[in-house]
Amino acid sequence: IFRGHDIQLFLTPMCLKSMNKTGFNGFGLQAIRSKEELEEIDFAISIGGDGTLLDTVCYIGPYEIPVVGINTGRMGFLATIAKEDIEWAAKDLINNNFSLEDRSLVRLESSPPLFEGLNFGLNEFTIHKRDTSSMITVHTYINNEYLNSYWADGLIVSTPTGSTGYSLSCGGPLISPSAKNFVITPVSPHNLNVRPMVVSDESEISFKIEGRSEKFLVSLDSRSTAIDASVDLKLKKEKFVAKLVKFQNYSFFDTLRQKLNWGYDMRN
Amino acid sequence: IFRGHDIQLFLTPMCLKSMNKTGFNGFGLQAIRSKEELEEIDFAISIGGDGTLLDTVCYIGPYEIPVVGINTGRMGFLATIAKEDIEWAAKDLINNNFSLEDRSLVRLESSPPLFEGLNFGLNEFTIHKRDTSSMITVHTYINNEYLNSYWADGLIVSTPTGSTGYSLSCGGPLISPSAKNFVITPVSPHNLNVRPMVVSDESEISFKIEGRSEKFLVSLDSRSTAIDASVDLKLKKEKFVAKLVKFQNYSFFDTLRQKLNWGYDMRN
Amino acid sequence: IFRGHDIQLFLTPMCLKSMNKTGFNGFGLQAIRSKEELEEIDFAISIGGDGTLLDTVCYIGPYEIPVVGINTGRMGFLATIAKEDIEWAAKDLINNNFSLEDRSLVRLESSPPLFEGLNFGLNEFTIHKRDTSSMITVHTYINNEYLNSYWADGLIVSTPTGSTGYSLSCGGPLISPSAKNFVITPVSPHNLNVRPMVVSDESEISFKIEGRSEKFLVSLDSRSTAIDASVDLKLKKEKFVAKLVKFQNYSFFDTLRQKLNWGYDMRN
Amino acid sequence: IFRGHDIQLFLTPMCLKSMNKTGFNGFGLQAIRSKEELEEIDFAISIGGDGTLLDTVCYIGPYEIPVVGINTGRMGFLATIAKEDIEWAAKDLINNNFSLEDRSLVRLESSPPLFEGLNFGLNEFTIHKRDTSSMITVHTYINNEYLNSYWADGLIVSTPTGSTGYSLSCGGPLISPSAKNFVITPVSPHNLNVRPMVVSDESEISFKIEGRSEKFLVSLDSRSTAIDASVDLKLKKEKFVAKLVKFQNYSFFDTLRQKLNWGYDMRN
Repeated sequence: IFRGHDIQLFLTPMCLKSMNKTGFNGFGLQAIRSKEELEEIDFAISIGGDGTLLDTVCYIGPYEIPVVGINTGRMGFLATIAKEDIEWAAKDLINNNFSLEDRSLVRLESSPPLFEGLNFGLNEFTIHKRDTSSMITVHTYINNEYLNSYWADGLIVSTPTGSTGYSLSCGGPLISPSAKNFVITPVSPHNLNVRPMVVSDESEISFKIEGRSEKFLVSLDSRSTAIDASVDLKLKKEKFVAKLVKFQNYSFFDTLRQKLNWGYDMRN
Repeated sequence: IFRGHDIQLFLTPMCLKSMNKTGFNGFGLQAIRSKEELEEIDFAISIGGDGTLLDTVCYIGPYEIPVVGINTGRMGFLATIAKEDIEWAAKDLINNNFSLEDRSLVRLESSPPLFEGLNFGLNEFTIHKRDTSSMITVHTYINNEYLNSYWADGLIVSTPTGSTGYSLSCGGPLISPSAKNFVITPVSPHNLNVRPMVVSDESEISFKIEGRSEKFLVSLDSRSTAIDASVDLKLKKEKFVAKLVKFQNYSFFDTLRQKLNWGYDMRN
Repeated sequence: IFRGHDIQLFLTPMCLKSMNKTGFNGFGLQAIRSKEELEEIDFAISIGGDGTLLDTVCYIGPYEIPVVGINTGRMGFLATIAKEDIEWAAKDLINNNFSLEDRSLVRLESSPPLFEGLNFGLNEFTIHKRDTSSMITVHTYINNEYLNSYWADGLIVSTPTGSTGYSLSCGGPLISPSAKNFVITPVSPHNLNVRPMVVSDESEISFKIEGRSEKFLVSLDSRSTAIDASVDLKLKKEKFVAKLVKFQNYSFFDTLRQKLNWGYDMRN
Repeated sequence: IFRGHDIQLFLTPMCLKSMNKTGFNGFGLQAIRSKEELEEIDFAISIGGDGTLLDTVCYIGPYEIPVVGINTGRMGFLATIAKEDIEWAAKDLINNNFSLEDRSLVRLESSPPLFEGLNFGLNEFTIHKRDTSSMITVHTYINNEYLNSYWADGLIVSTPTGSTGYSLSCGGPLISPSAKNFVITPVSPHNLNVRPMVVSDESEISFKIEGRSEKFLVSLDSRSTAIDASVDLKLKKEKFVAKLVKFQNYSFFDTLRQKLNWGYDMRN
């Protein structure tokens, strides 16, 4: 598709390695070798599902390289380009016929640091009890002001992007990408009065965990790690954003209606 | 309490009238006679419950007079000064020992105009089917982009302030007063996939209603009126705000925890 | 279809009348003229949607005539025979190739009597506040034991059949037709701790309504009437049932999955 | 308290052992040494919370010994006798001034067998994904008829007794102890249309689990074990019941209202 245009394609090191294994020579494509090279890249193309795009954003991080999300399966919330639309999407990309949508990220500041520096998520941060342990208590503070002690299986802090994911399954609201918020959604809370809470994404959210088990799970998007109660956890909005490439016919609300079957009420 | 301070008290005309009826002479208090006088007032004191405070805000409107909410019954979300705390609250007021919290209002622009110019609400705007009629369909647009057609008993657009009210009863999230949002919450929606949706309060939300009945109910806070499907309905954030007087020990989260019994889980 | 079989078709008086109006002579079909004739009928055929079938069951009442539900639109929960399947359904009916499914009804006993003797419902009984009035309090008793005082827009008592209807929209559970229950589901309750409550259908459920308004709405299926707080309301299981004709390939769970889009999760 | 009455007290072996460790001589109390002795016991007294009572029922199993639930902390749903009421409860017990309430149990039949023969639960059976694995798919059948494939973090099958526990936290309805049901409640399901489903407790519920992880967790009340997808899982009502001793002033609805704060709505 890109032939005849002054365009160079690069692959991530891991990706090139796995392609080589399959005997595919990659058309002489080169892997990205350094941060400097990463900085010079114009677009990242994520091929897979929404999960792949989350990983791509994790890889790109502060470089804010615009991401094109191609889905190989069913249309995603993030990977919105179907395989059959790749060609015109590539043309639109080359012709500068697109816009960028900034998506906020949630940043975890912990002591000791976790996630080897990749301490941000596009979808959500979660705290969860471990397998067979009983419920945990998460004391939660907004800008150092005490909010609540959630007694639950877990707690989610979701970005607008993540509001269509795990938070939604746990009763959280949908959030428009342009609303500058986080939503704090408890997982199976014991107190029936507790409800999802929307706060400004300028807020700093901090936690103290309490539970019979000595270990808890924390996660950023699909990456998770076990910690103990001594770890200090603090969330804020990440300084950089994820930039998603949007083509003309894209509409977040269309995607929402389609993926949540809003147009299609069979109960009547 | 205020004796000895250079302070003048005024009453609303309606209030003075009803006081006079009861034989109470009002200590020579005067009613507010004009818009000019209203403009010169430093504080409005709302005595009653949250409902009374909603009415007070409606009365004050664009004058943005700071409101002190005294509750005569149980502590409210808005009327947070208990009767026994009036004395020190008055002192704090006189000594300038307070802060003001801006609360956004939702503004209804309709054609023809409704609610005789008092077309704003501190809590919420609602559309509802009438008594015995069947469900209505509310086609909803954000900034003229099609969002969804809600098939439901009704639809609520709530401010952060209203998020602890009717919207909460219908499954809406809590919203921190500082989050700049509206939440669109359907009332008993037929499509089970439909969820409350948080949007930026910079959004313009417009509606087209459809239903077998010829009449629908729309309301702003506690005021409601019947309309037919021909009325154009559009919502945005009101240009002015409601200013609530907050004293030192006030915390929105404290109020939340207390009023929603968060601290008090008896199921254990 | 039925030609050549010793079968006589009858129409309801209202139906014949409306058919005559349209100039259709009804193939010489006769209207049902008396209760005796109704008693001798083998099957009632409801042509329309689920709403039509509810009306048919209301018409048949204690005669327990098996009902065949043909739907002219989208497949219903009750009217499960699509137009294109009428022929083989008719054959199965003639060949006795079907089974009957008993569906329990909810019976309203009130003083004074309401609904002109048609005091039973296949789906649900509801109490609701009127249009512009504020919430109502419904004191509720199970077998004369105090259950709760619901402070809400309304209250639903649903049969298993009605559990896929209004109760579901208000957060009620699904109930298998063979489970011998009622479910009490509040409509937009103010107390967030209040949850739908499943009780044995051998229970007697009684109510006392309280509210600022003098009038409330009560309904059985799609029929509703306004009452005041002085009316005594008591519910129990109706002595007779609705008999639904089920053909071989029918499965309640299939219908459920299809109509609630269970097989079809687009969020992935 | 029991002095002067012809009453013998026994302790469970484990309990006696732990008492001896603390130097307490147990007033010469004897441990239960055999099944025969267990059979001859008139009452089991569970001292602790609801969790202790679940363990007691597990210990008693098919012997159906009536259980008196004394709570040492806050009133429970099952352990309803407060410490200060022990004396009159003991008197009522001696004077035969009580009734017995049968509570149904859920029985797990698996191949291979699990839980070392203690394959029943008073509250619930659950299937759950493990710690860091992704969601699981649970294909579910009622009486061998396909119900649904739940794509979720887990799935709960709760008895009426368990309906106030984990199922309630996950959106399940309350079920009156006398309603002969199970409720199937998904945990954080991905498909938003999926709702808790009430079925007759005469139903046989069977499962096939599918998931990327090789191991899943299954539990009965507080006991849990890891299995792989090859295990056959089938649930039905246990042949024996748990018999709870109810004293005069006990009311399930009272407990419900008290523990769920129904009487105490502070949001007004």
